[in-house]
Amino acid sequence: MLIKEKVEQAKKLLTEFNTDCWITFVRESAINGDPSLAFLVPADLTWHSAIIISKDGKAHAIVGKYDQKTVEETGAYNSVVGFVEGIKEPLQSYLKNLNPQTIALNYSEGSEIVDGITHGMYLTIFNMLKEIGLEEKIISAEKIVSALRGRKSDSEIDNIKSAIKVTEEIFDKVTVFIKPGKTEKEIAAFMKTEVEKRNLEYAWEPAVCPAVFTGPETAGAHYAPTDKKIERGHVLNMDFGVKWNGYCSDLQRTFYILKEGESEAPEDVMKGFNTIVDAIEASNQAIKPGVIAKEIDAIARNIVVENGYDEFPHGLGHQIGRFSHDGTALLGPPWEKYAQKPFLPLEERMVFTIEPRLEVPGRGTATIEEMVVVSKNGAEWLSHPQKEIILINS
Amino acid sequence: MLIKEKVEQAKKLLTEFNTDCWITFVRESAINGDPSLAFLVPADLTWHSAIIISKDGKAHAIVGKYDQKTVEETGAYNSVVGFVEGIKEPLQSYLKNLNPQTIALNYSEGSEIVDGITHGMYLTIFNMLKEIGLEEKIISAEKIVSALRGRKSDSEIDNIKSAIKVTEEIFDKVTVFIKPGKTEKEIAAFMKTEVEKRNLEYAWEPAVCPAVFTGPETAGAHYAPTDKKIERGHVLNMDFGVKWNGYCSDLQRTFYILKEGESEAPEDVMKGFNTIVDAIEASNQAIKPGVIAKEIDAIARNIVVENGYDEFPHGLGHQIGRFSHDGTALLGPPWEKYAQKPFLPLEERMVFTIEPRLEVPGRGTATIEEMVVVSKNGAEWLSHPQKEIILINS
Repeated sequence: MLIKEKVEQAKKLLTEFNTDCWITFVRESAINGDPSLAFLVPADLTWHSAIIISKDGKAHAIVGKYDQKTVEETGAYNSVVGFVEGIKEPLQSYLKNLNPQTIALNYSEGSEIVDGITHGMYLTIFNMLKEIGLEEKIISAEKIVSALRGRKSDSEIDNIKSAIKVTEEIFDKVTVFIKPGKTEKEIAAFMKTEVEKRNLEYAWEPAVCPAVFTGPETAGAHYAPTDKKIERGHVLNMDFGVKWNGYCSDLQRTFYILKEGESEAPEDVMKGFNTIVDAIEASNQAIKPGVIAKEIDAIARNIVVENGYDEFPHGLGHQIGRFSHDGTALLGPPWEKYAQKPFLPLEERMVFTIEPRLEVPGRGTATIEEMVVVSKNGAEWLSHPQKEIILINS
Repeated sequence: MLIKEKVEQAKKLLTEFNTDCWITFVRESAINGDPSLAFLVPADLTWHSAIIISKDGKAHAIVGKYDQKTVEETGAYNSVVGFVEGIKEPLQSYLKNLNPQTIALNYSEGSEIVDGITHGMYLTIFNMLKEIGLEEKIISAEKIVSALRGRKSDSEIDNIKSAIKVTEEIFDKVTVFIKPGKTEKEIAAFMKTEVEKRNLEYAWEPAVCPAVFTGPETAGAHYAPTDKKIERGHVLNMDFGVKWNGYCSDLQRTFYILKEGESEAPEDVMKGFNTIVDAIEASNQAIKPGVIAKEIDAIARNIVVENGYDEFPHGLGHQIGRFSHDGTALLGPPWEKYAQKPFLPLEERMVFTIEPRLEVPGRGTATIEEMVVVSKNGAEWLSHPQKEIILINS
């Protein structure tokens, strides 16, 4: 279903980007998978395999003999060849006949989600194309793959909504579980039990999903939960997501542990928390198709800095899909490591996180992460945005 | 533990292969991981990251700020830099100082397990090296990575043995479960329950682990279990493995479903089965350090063909480790798709499968897969080799 939908979408993208053919070229995809492959076949491929989609509307696959039946049964391909000894002859013969003027391959310096072909595999296909005089037709598939991943179908958005729903449920459950004296690890374990009860996968590496941080001086966003205990007067935050049908959620929530006698969070914590809420609201308002991604980042970043906090050392938000970090366009600042991603325009049906962060000195990190989809008239919330800090009093 | 062990081994390999430095260069490794990474860091890395091991015995890592602490805590690195804006400056500055005459990168046309760097990342590091005049020092890390993966440490072999033990236990359990009328899917489901009870991961893609094939005209080795029912007079085979502490098993067993009144398998089935047993025994006997891998394949292949069966359309056996298909040297025929792998010599501490296959017309596929480790004096069984066809009579 997904595969037929995405193969059809790819054919249209080849026309939109005036590209004669797009080749996903992989081997032993369990080891070095190309992230585009999940849209094209239902299982890993073992030997050298080429999935060739062309502007004339044909989808052709050349795979090892043992993978042929699985690929045929997708119903997405006009023809599937299963070879035994090597891919060179069937690949060259199909491409000689197709005679494309542009051959898009999955490589990109600027977008890891596009950059699926390994350097060794690039050398292999380059040499095979050279033998038939087509090596100069190679271009990057960056535009095709970015659009294919970024522009979500209805069923992809439904899967993401289902993943968010479960994530919010589990955040609600853990709110009752958090108490002073419990450790980060205990909180993470509680949430993991909820995920496993539902037989779901984690949106990212289980060692840091959920990530749980309590109090000041934590290791930062990618560090596993520790034996550190929840203390009164501290801010706690969590970063958590699950996969539903292969699609991810990715949300953060901020909590405050009341001191004895307190009935609300103190002023310094509230100032930090509300700065984050304001930054998310302002960036959400500015999202529209055609806006350049870095402009959204700048809005939130300015609000954080104007309120006297250090700017967050990461982008404001990323696309999300089959991976928690997905797509190419990024709500990020123009830093070297983000390459051209912050300079790309937002498009309809892209799904983004919004996740500014700041330190409340002596308390911990205030950080909220919401998810939105870009629609014709602006951003639509996919998550239920956190507007109030969650108070723990027990 | 594994990481310290492997980083130390890598330092020695740089001396053995006279290579000044080896760089593993990745970003968003959850998306496009380099298979070498698991030996170097305990978790995925997010931003551009370079793990640099040099012949002078230094291990240096340059990673995104949020990954720094995790990498430092391995204790395997002399220094870890955590950057915020980009990797270029810290990478160029370290390498200018090191001034290596050879820089091994993880690419290879002939070995997928070595071929971890994507083409986009290759272009990125190539350009960074060019700016400091080092781009001509780049070589393939094929020898280093192949040796690092192939030559297993004691603890790696222990993990593999544990994975095999569980696999053999589950094969024993399922033997009692198999009955005429049960479907391939039911048999697979039974085995999956046993895996999940033990909280283990599958050695490969769960959709085809176990793979269960009964009777003639099955789809071949990579196809998922179907609703096809077990019938008397048919041969059934299964391909199955689990992961123990990150290390795989991969075994196949052959069963025969007795007809009413039969007390043993008929002659045609026994001839096929015994041909496989003989092919495994003969190839096992021939394994020794220094023997060229394809010679072992040829021994088994000849036995199968001399007995009047079609040769198997795949290699006799592969290395196994963190992946079910691992390493570079391969017990395979000299076919295009296997590149140089069959031409490599066997080395001590390499772990191989041996898995010839043949069709018994009208009955099904006879195929056994065993696992061996190459030791100084020859192959040692890691699995308990199947010598008798398993008879199902109920």
